[in-house]
Amino acid sequence: MRFLHSMIRVYDLDAALHFFCDLLGLQTLRRNDYPSGRFSLIFLGTGAEGDNATVELTWNWDQAEPYSQGRNFGHLAFAVPDIYALCERLQAGGVTIRRPPRDGRMAFVVSPDGISVELLQAGEALAPAEPWASMQNTGTW
Amino acid sequence: MRFLHSMIRVYDLDAALHFFCDLLGLQTLRRNDYPSGRFSLIFLGTGAEGDNATVELTWNWDQAEPYSQGRNFGHLAFAVPDIYALCERLQAGGVTIRRPPRDGRMAFVVSPDGISVELLQAGEALAPAEPWASMQNTGTW
Repeated sequence: MRFLHSMIRVYDLDAALHFFCDLLGLQTLRRNDYPSGRFSLIFLGTGAEGDNATVELTWNWDQAEPYSQGRNFGHLAFAVPDIYALCERLQAGGVTIRRPPRDGRMAFVVSPDGISVELLQAGEALAPAEPWASMQNTGTW
Repeated sequence: MRFLHSMIRVYDLDAALHFFCDLLGLQTLRRNDYPSGRFSLIFLGTGAEGDNATVELTWNWDQAEPYSQGRNFGHLAFAVPDIYALCERLQAGGVTIRRPPRDGRMAFVVSPDGISVELLQAGEALAPAEPWASMQNTGTW
């Protein structure tokens, strides 16, 4: 068996694509629009060789309110080449760094739909550095 | 960047491992117990070569009630070699097949914590066959 994807429902597709692609760095691998069912499926991936599993966004065109959030789902996690550079880009894009990478190793942010995303520095942790080292947590993730 | 895992919180670890491993067929790749924090992390994978992304189970030892469920998370999806054989095994294990594989191609089941799991027949769809072909949907997923 193969792990294919994790699907999340997104209320505002533009906001979700801005978060996951423009800011986080995922790529749109394919998009299928279903006008008769009034929904679209967008598959996002890292583009890294051998990274087969994707994040599937389901966008129901007529969804009238944001989707509810639960605690049974935890987060999506990605290894990133430079956690400081990524957190800086996210922050500049208006994303709150809920768990800053004080240890040069781990951060948590949240998507526009309330999906937590864990960022882990690939390889060795980076040396502690400001502004992250002294930044406090914000909210939950 | 690399897609590492999707984390879900599980209330009853034995029930979750029975569902994901004994019935669905995932393997425990590693388990870390943190007695000081009173939680355990269990990483499950398909074992297929090149399938790097995993499902991380977080088990908080002192969680007093089942985790809440939301609609922003959709499901985990796996390609499987024989969707009929797998659905039969799941059903024999007490799992309700909420969306039976009437088309020989797609089914949905739900984990003990309310996490939907999509099963997709690898390759070509199987020929329609009973009891699946005439089985109705049950609940939501």
